[in-house]
Amino acid sequence: MKNKKKHVLILGGSSDIGLEVVKKFLQLNWNVSAHCFSNEKKLKNLKKYSKHINIVKFNFSNFKIEKSIKKNFNKKYDSIVNLIGYVDNKGFENTNLKSLIKSLSINAIIPILIERMLVKKMLSQKWGRILNCSSIGVKFGGGGNSYNYSLSKHCLEFIPSNYKIWAKKNVFINNLRIGVTNTKIHKKMKRSKKNIKNRVKLIPISRMAEPKEISSYIVNLSTDTNSYMTGQTLNVSGGE
Amino acid sequence: MKNKKKHVLILGGSSDIGLEVVKKFLQLNWNVSAHCFSNEKKLKNLKKYSKHINIVKFNFSNFKIEKSIKKNFNKKYDSIVNLIGYVDNKGFENTNLKSLIKSLSINAIIPILIERMLVKKMLSQKWGRILNCSSIGVKFGGGGNSYNYSLSKHCLEFIPSNYKIWAKKNVFINNLRIGVTNTKIHKKMKRSKKNIKNRVKLIPISRMAEPKEISSYIVNLSTDTNSYMTGQTLNVSGGE
Amino acid sequence: MKNKKKHVLILGGSSDIGLEVVKKFLQLNWNVSAHCFSNEKKLKNLKKYSKHINIVKFNFSNFKIEKSIKKNFNKKYDSIVNLIGYVDNKGFENTNLKSLIKSLSINAIIPILIERMLVKKMLSQKWGRILNCSSIGVKFGGGGNSYNYSLSKHCLEFIPSNYKIWAKKNVFINNLRIGVTNTKIHKKMKRSKKNIKNRVKLIPISRMAEPKEISSYIVNLSTDTNSYMTGQTLNVSGGE
Amino acid sequence: MKNKKKHVLILGGSSDIGLEVVKKFLQLNWNVSAHCFSNEKKLKNLKKYSKHINIVKFNFSNFKIEKSIKKNFNKKYDSIVNLIGYVDNKGFENTNLKSLIKSLSINAIIPILIERMLVKKMLSQKWGRILNCSSIGVKFGGGGNSYNYSLSKHCLEFIPSNYKIWAKKNVFINNLRIGVTNTKIHKKMKRSKKNIKNRVKLIPISRMAEPKEISSYIVNLSTDTNSYMTGQTLNVSGGE
Repeated sequence: MKNKKKHVLILGGSSDIGLEVVKKFLQLNWNVSAHCFSNEKKLKNLKKYSKHINIVKFNFSNFKIEKSIKKNFNKKYDSIVNLIGYVDNKGFENTNLKSLIKSLSINAIIPILIERMLVKKMLSQKWGRILNCSSIGVKFGGGGNSYNYSLSKHCLEFIPSNYKIWAKKNVFINNLRIGVTNTKIHKKMKRSKKNIKNRVKLIPISRMAEPKEISSYIVNLSTDTNSYMTGQTLNVSGGE
Repeated sequence: MKNKKKHVLILGGSSDIGLEVVKKFLQLNWNVSAHCFSNEKKLKNLKKYSKHINIVKFNFSNFKIEKSIKKNFNKKYDSIVNLIGYVDNKGFENTNLKSLIKSLSINAIIPILIERMLVKKMLSQKWGRILNCSSIGVKFGGGGNSYNYSLSKHCLEFIPSNYKIWAKKNVFINNLRIGVTNTKIHKKMKRSKKNIKNRVKLIPISRMAEPKEISSYIVNLSTDTNSYMTGQTLNVSGGE
Repeated sequence: MKNKKKHVLILGGSSDIGLEVVKKFLQLNWNVSAHCFSNEKKLKNLKKYSKHINIVKFNFSNFKIEKSIKKNFNKKYDSIVNLIGYVDNKGFENTNLKSLIKSLSINAIIPILIERMLVKKMLSQKWGRILNCSSIGVKFGGGGNSYNYSLSKHCLEFIPSNYKIWAKKNVFINNLRIGVTNTKIHKKMKRSKKNIKNRVKLIPISRMAEPKEISSYIVNLSTDTNSYMTGQTLNVSGGE
Repeated sequence: MKNKKKHVLILGGSSDIGLEVVKKFLQLNWNVSAHCFSNEKKLKNLKKYSKHINIVKFNFSNFKIEKSIKKNFNKKYDSIVNLIGYVDNKGFENTNLKSLIKSLSINAIIPILIERMLVKKMLSQKWGRILNCSSIGVKFGGGGNSYNYSLSKHCLEFIPSNYKIWAKKNVFINNLRIGVTNTKIHKKMKRSKKNIKNRVKLIPISRMAEPKEISSYIVNLSTDTNSYMTGQTLNVSGGE
């Protein structure tokens, strides 16, 4: 294993945190496959740093998703970092069946199905790391307009009992609950500056995380720096 | 409130535990609306005990579910006990998008949408109890062929932050994780007698629960016996 | 078992909650041994309700405590409710070795030693319930001047793995984290009315519990109403 | 801060894990103060690697412990790693008041008092990391003859609410529950080879951790690699 160049798949690689994770893996000399839904521009910019980056454009709202998964993610990966974060701003009061299923599919079910397909190859090569990134909001039952988002991330956090069998073959799976981070997600969530300020007041560390520092935790948990932790859910959330 | 006859809605009322819960509420002199998917026979038998039972037959696989919800659950309820348990015997290895969405819809999303509709009336009358029944399997990541079931019950356990506002109006919501119980669900789950025996060995109390004793916990949590607990997840599971 | 009159030991029986628990057990026709440190007056008043109450005055600061335990608690009990709550108003900043050991001894170690002695008889008669009452403050790391109190209650919450063996003999142990309750403990904790008001604002249910309603949860968990739950920690705390 | 050489205090620095932690900090070019109870020999051997190591021999069973703390730990530290692990092989059945207080004092109270003294300097310099190392056994209520050990480690895990104030000044505190590790502690705990083998069978990763890999997690959590996580308890325990 040691001599082979490792390969990571980053789902949601064009997000602010995703880009930092891509950079860190490139610096560690891994091959990187970075998935994005539509905006591959920023990922393409990273090509100047390394040729070992491969961009996978793939829309989860596709109808024949299961066939598409097989076609798009047919390589051998050593590590998967799932940073998918579909935000639709539906709160508990105004959600509905259709939008809930969409959030659950994109944020939980499809990543799970992709991971299930790829874990087989990890098991056969006896090495693998899967890290599902969730949100600290899950701990608090979501907020005003993030019910669909939080419910689907909560769903993603379910670790199947199979993880115990995977552990024996050096394949680990963990969850990382990311705290409030200085990214464009707040814009997406239609949070005003004042709202963000009030939100930050609730964080013991009393500031947002930077994408760069979150990416360190992610990379440590999804490379061989993590050699003995599996089945866990970690809060990197400024003390929340 | 004290002089009015209270009304409970029991989702999944024809299950073995459901029937016991119906009986207990009738004994407490509540009006009971017992929902079932198809087999109303056993519920009808309970009519000999009391005329205060009303049977709601309603299939969650209906296409225009949201309209149907409005039509079928348009009364004022003081308490909701959700005992829906759709079991499809899909494990992590052989699940797929469609079956996962079906399990999530029946076991989590539709009950949540029903509860959301009915909670409004509870808030206006300043009294309400919601109890979502889950399974101890959720704690362990499900088992062999209960991945869809456990994932959907895990999803159901998500309590929206709104519960804090409801609490101020004396409307409570809790989860009860039910341990291995002596019901027909084991048959549904295609567990052999030997399998059940081996499963029981893992329970500290070293026996299955009886539906009757589980129904006591349920009724205590979903009537005025519970006057100060909300937002909690309890394990009634023989020490697991 | 059914025909024998059961016997409960209530440690800290003269507290506001303790007195309510004593009353409830007397109403259920149990024999009650109510322990207190010094103020047995209120317990004596309860003798008018029933002759089945026995008062055990016993100071935990005794030097030869282990001998005293043997002498004072030498009966067979079916249930133990531990409501000991020694409050010394030491916060993290001004605590010290001596006061910490005193709090730990009174609130955790001595009750544990008493329970360990009495559990043997419960095991031999194949029935027993132990309920250790803790505080919701433990969840939040205690507050201003309750570090010693919260640390010692946290310590009390440790359930030894032996509980699994006890479970097989129908002997159960659980923890109940009690929320802010309308008792004299706030006076002891030197909380002003304004402080209490601010504290209550943090409780979703937006009021303190009454000793009477807490006593219901206690009695349900420490009698045969609880037939299938052991090894658990419950928060009865108004949604906190 | 960046130009100053940082200084770590390692309590229990002569344990197998402790020695690896010392080495890692020396490699990171920190000043190291390594505490031990008696056997400083192995720590002295590390002096060949670096002169920046300072050995603090200090027995916690000292009578005038609070004065001694002041005298022995009077420097400014940037990080504290607490690896104290006093093992007396007392199980629940054969523990007693005296031995429980000894375990609680050595494994919990005295480290807490040392940390409390040193945290003040961390707060004034607006940087600090405290990591208390506990044991995965705490999750399971300890085992056969480790009741005193597990109870005292459980007690150590209590994080005072003050951590929120510390967070604002960039002073973090976390707990690390260490899984079964290949150290001499098993000898101390009188575990036979067969016992260890059976214990290892329960670990999903199906092997013990090596002190070296545990030391990586420790160093990552107690240096500036950890910039956004505080108030957490992590299980590095092979999937348990």
